[in-house]
Amino acid sequence: MKAAVYKGNKTFSIIERELMEPHAEEVRIKVAYTGVCGTDVHIYHGMMDKRVAIPETIGHEMSGTIDAVGEKVSDFKIGDKVVVRPLDDRKVKPSDKGFNHICEELKFIGIDSSGSMQQFWNVPAFTLHKLKPETNLRLAALIEPLSVAVHDVRLSGLKAGETAVILGGGPIGLLVALVAKQTGAQVVVSEVNDTRIAKAEELGLTAINPLKMDLVGYVKSITENRKADVVFEVAGVQATLDMMTEVAGIRGRIVMVAIHGQKKEVDLFQFFWKELKLIGVRVYEKEDYEKAIELVTENKLKFEKLITEVRPLSDIQQVFEDIDKQPDGMKILMDCQQ
Amino acid sequence: MKAAVYKGNKTFSIIERELMEPHAEEVRIKVAYTGVCGTDVHIYHGMMDKRVAIPETIGHEMSGTIDAVGEKVSDFKIGDKVVVRPLDDRKVKPSDKGFNHICEELKFIGIDSSGSMQQFWNVPAFTLHKLKPETNLRLAALIEPLSVAVHDVRLSGLKAGETAVILGGGPIGLLVALVAKQTGAQVVVSEVNDTRIAKAEELGLTAINPLKMDLVGYVKSITENRKADVVFEVAGVQATLDMMTEVAGIRGRIVMVAIHGQKKEVDLFQFFWKELKLIGVRVYEKEDYEKAIELVTENKLKFEKLITEVRPLSDIQQVFEDIDKQPDGMKILMDCQQ
Ligand SMILES: NC(=O)c1ccc[n+]([C@@H]2O[C@H](COP(=O)([O-])OP(=O)(O)OC[C@H]3O[C@@H](n4cnc5c(N)ncnc54)[C@H](O)[C@@H]3O)[C@@H](O)[C@H]2O)c1
Ligand SMILES: NC(=O)c1ccc[n+]([C@@H]2O[C@H](COP(=O)([O-])OP(=O)(O)OC[C@H]3O[C@@H](n4cnc5c(N)ncnc54)[C@H](O)[C@@H]3O)[C@@H](O)[C@H]2O)c1
Ligand SMILES: [Zn+2]
Ligand SMILES: [Zn+2]
Repeated sequence: MKAAVYKGNKTFSIIERELMEPHAEEVRIKVAYTGVCGTDVHIYHGMMDKRVAIPETIGHEMSGTIDAVGEKVSDFKIGDKVVVRPLDDRKVKPSDKGFNHICEELKFIGIDSSGSMQQFWNVPAFTLHKLKPETNLRLAALIEPLSVAVHDVRLSGLKAGETAVILGGGPIGLLVALVAKQTGAQVVVSEVNDTRIAKAEELGLTAINPLKMDLVGYVKSITENRKADVVFEVAGVQATLDMMTEVAGIRGRIVMVAIHGQKKEVDLFQFFWKELKLIGVRVYEKEDYEKAIELVTENKLKFEKLITEVRPLSDIQQVFEDIDKQPDGMKILMDCQQ
Repeated sequence: MKAAVYKGNKTFSIIERELMEPHAEEVRIKVAYTGVCGTDVHIYHGMMDKRVAIPETIGHEMSGTIDAVGEKVSDFKIGDKVVVRPLDDRKVKPSDKGFNHICEELKFIGIDSSGSMQQFWNVPAFTLHKLKPETNLRLAALIEPLSVAVHDVRLSGLKAGETAVILGGGPIGLLVALVAKQTGAQVVVSEVNDTRIAKAEELGLTAINPLKMDLVGYVKSITENRKADVVFEVAGVQATLDMMTEVAGIRGRIVMVAIHGQKKEVDLFQFFWKELKLIGVRVYEKEDYEKAIELVTENKLKFEKLITEVRPLSDIQQVFEDIDKQPDGMKILMDCQQ
C-alpha cells in the first residue's frame, strides 16, 4: 500500500509500505479522503518538527471504510463507513476532571502519532464514529473541522434570535458561521480577503470587509444597537482581538477559537464594563462529532462548496507547494486511494 | 447640616448646607457612616475630575436611617435603617437587555452625582435597600463593597468543594475571599503586602506571598494537581494577569474583578489549551445587595476586622492625606455625624 510521509524540510514522499494486521483493539481503515488542515501546513513549514516523529505520515481530517477488525473489536465490521476522532486520551487523570478531550496528557493522532494520509490506516477502535451507509465520504472528510465548529457554537450557548459575529472567514470561521446560522441565530462574517468573502456569500452567509465598512455600525444597525450576543474570534490577529471586545454587546460571549501562540493585548476594561465573557475552546467532544455526522449526512448546509479541490495523494508535495502559492483556497481533500 | 465637598486639587472642605426636603419620590437619609473606597482616592488624586461636578460631595459606601420621606414614597418610613445601591439606571434601554446594573447610560451616584459624605443625603427611593432593625450601622457601611464580592462569587458559579484563588488581598479581594469561603469552597489568597497577608490571616483566611512561595505548586498540592477551579483577579497588575491563566486548572473560571484602564497582555493560548473562561464583572444587582445585607446582619464573617479606623467626617482632608502616606490600611469609615 501507499503512504505519504513528511520527511522534514518541506518535503513529502510517497512510499510503499506493508499492509499491517490491526491489533486486538484496533481496526484497519481504507482511507477515502483526508483534508489538509492549517496544522498540516504548519507541520510542512517545519514549525512542529519537535512534536512530529519524522519521517511520519500526518493527516487527521479523514473518512474511510473499515477494512479489517482486531479480535476484540465488536462494535464495527468490515465495510462500515467511519471517521476517526483523533484524540488519544488513554492517559486521562482525575485532575482532568472528566474533560478527556483536553486532558493534560492528550495525544493528537496525526501529529503525535501516525495520521491518515495513506491508503490504509490502523487506529484504536475507541477513536471511531460510525457514519450512515448513505453518508457521502467526500463530505465526511469535513467532519473533523465541522466538529470544531459544533463544539464552539455549543460552548457559546448561542440561541435562536441572537446575533453572532464571526471574525475570520477561513475554513473554521465559515464552518462556525454555518453551524451558528443553523441554530437560528443571525450571523455576520467579518473577513478581509475578498476571495473568502465571495466564498462566504456563496454559502449563503452575510460577509463584511471591516477594512471597507464599519463593522460595529453595521452590527448595531441589524440588532437595534444591541451589538453581538456572541463573537467568535477565528482569525488570530491583533485586529480581531481589538474588534471582539468592541463588537460585543452587554454580557456578550466571546469564543476564542483562534490559537494565539504569544501573549496578546486584550481590552480587559471592556470585559468589566459590559460584563463580557471569554470562552476558551479546544477541539471537540464525542457529542460534537455525533452532531457533525448528522449535519453532514443531512447535507443541508452547502458543505460541498467548501471543498475547493480534490487531489490524488500521490500529488501531496505539489498540493502543499500550491497552498503556499495560493492560500485563499478553502478545503483541499487528498484522495487517499489515488 | 455639614457636608464634605471635593474641590479638586487634592482638597476637601467641610461646608454648612441648608437641609433640603426630599422630592416626592425621594427620601432624606441621616447618614451614619461612609466608607472610603479606592474610587474616592482616585477622585481625590484628580483622576476623575472630568466626571465629578466639582465642587461635589462624593462617597457611596454608606449606611444611615431615614429622616424624611417624599409624598410618593410608601415603602420606607422615618427611622428605617437603610443602605443605598448607588446605581441610577433610570435611562435603561432595550439594548441593555435587562442588565440594568450595567446599562449604557448608567450613572453612578457619588461619582456622577452627589454622594454620602455629608450629614444628610437626599436620594431617590428606588436606590434603597432596607436593613433589619438589628443590623449594625458600622458594618452596614461595608454592604456596598461586600455586594461587589457577592456578585463576583455568584457569577463565578463557585461551588462547595471547589478551590478558589484570590489574586490580591485588598478590601475587595478579602471580601471576595470571605464570601467564597462561605460557599464552602477551599480558598487561597495571594498577596504581596505582608500587612495585608496578616490581615487575611486575622480573618481566618489562608494567605500566600507569591514572591516568597510557589503559589501554583501550593495550589496543586492542596487540589491533587487540579489547580484552581475559580480565580479572582483583584490586584490589577500584569503579574496577576500572568498568574491567573497559570494557576487555573482545566475548564477553570477566571473572574476579572480588577479594572484595567489600559489594554494588557493575556495568555490566550492557555484559554484555548485548558478551555478557560474569563468572566467580566461590574458592581452588583439587587439580589447581591440582599445577600450582602443578610451576611452583614448575621455577622459571622469577622467583617469588623476589615474596618481599620473610624474617623469623624470633619477630618476628611486628613483622612485622604493619611491614606496616601499609609495605603496598607483596609477600610476607613467616616462617621458622618461627627
Ligand atoms: N480551538 C480549536 O480547537 C481550533 C481548531 C482548529 C483551528 N483552530 C484555529 O482557528 C483559527 C482559524 O483557522 P482557519 O483554518 O480557518 O485559519 P485561516 O488562517 O485560514 O483563517 C483565518 C481568516 O481570518 C482572516 N482575517 C485576517 N485578519 C482579519 C481581520 N482583521 N478581520 C477579519 N478577518 C481577518 C484571514 O483572511 C483568514 O481568512 C486558527 O487560529 C486555527 O489555529 C482552533
Ligand atoms: N468589578 C467591579 O465592579 C469593581 C468594584 C470595586 C473595585 N474593583 C476593582 O477591584 C480591584 C481591587 O480593589 P481594592 O480596593 O481591593 O484594591 P487594592 O489596590 O487595595 O488591592 C489590590 C491588592 O493587590 C495586591 N497585589 C499587587 N500585586 C500583586 C501580585 N503580584 N500578587 C498578588 N497581589 C498583588 C496589592 O498589594 C493590594 O493589596 C481594583 O482594581 C478596583 O478598581 C472592581
Ligand atoms: Zn485540523
Ligand atoms: Zn466603592
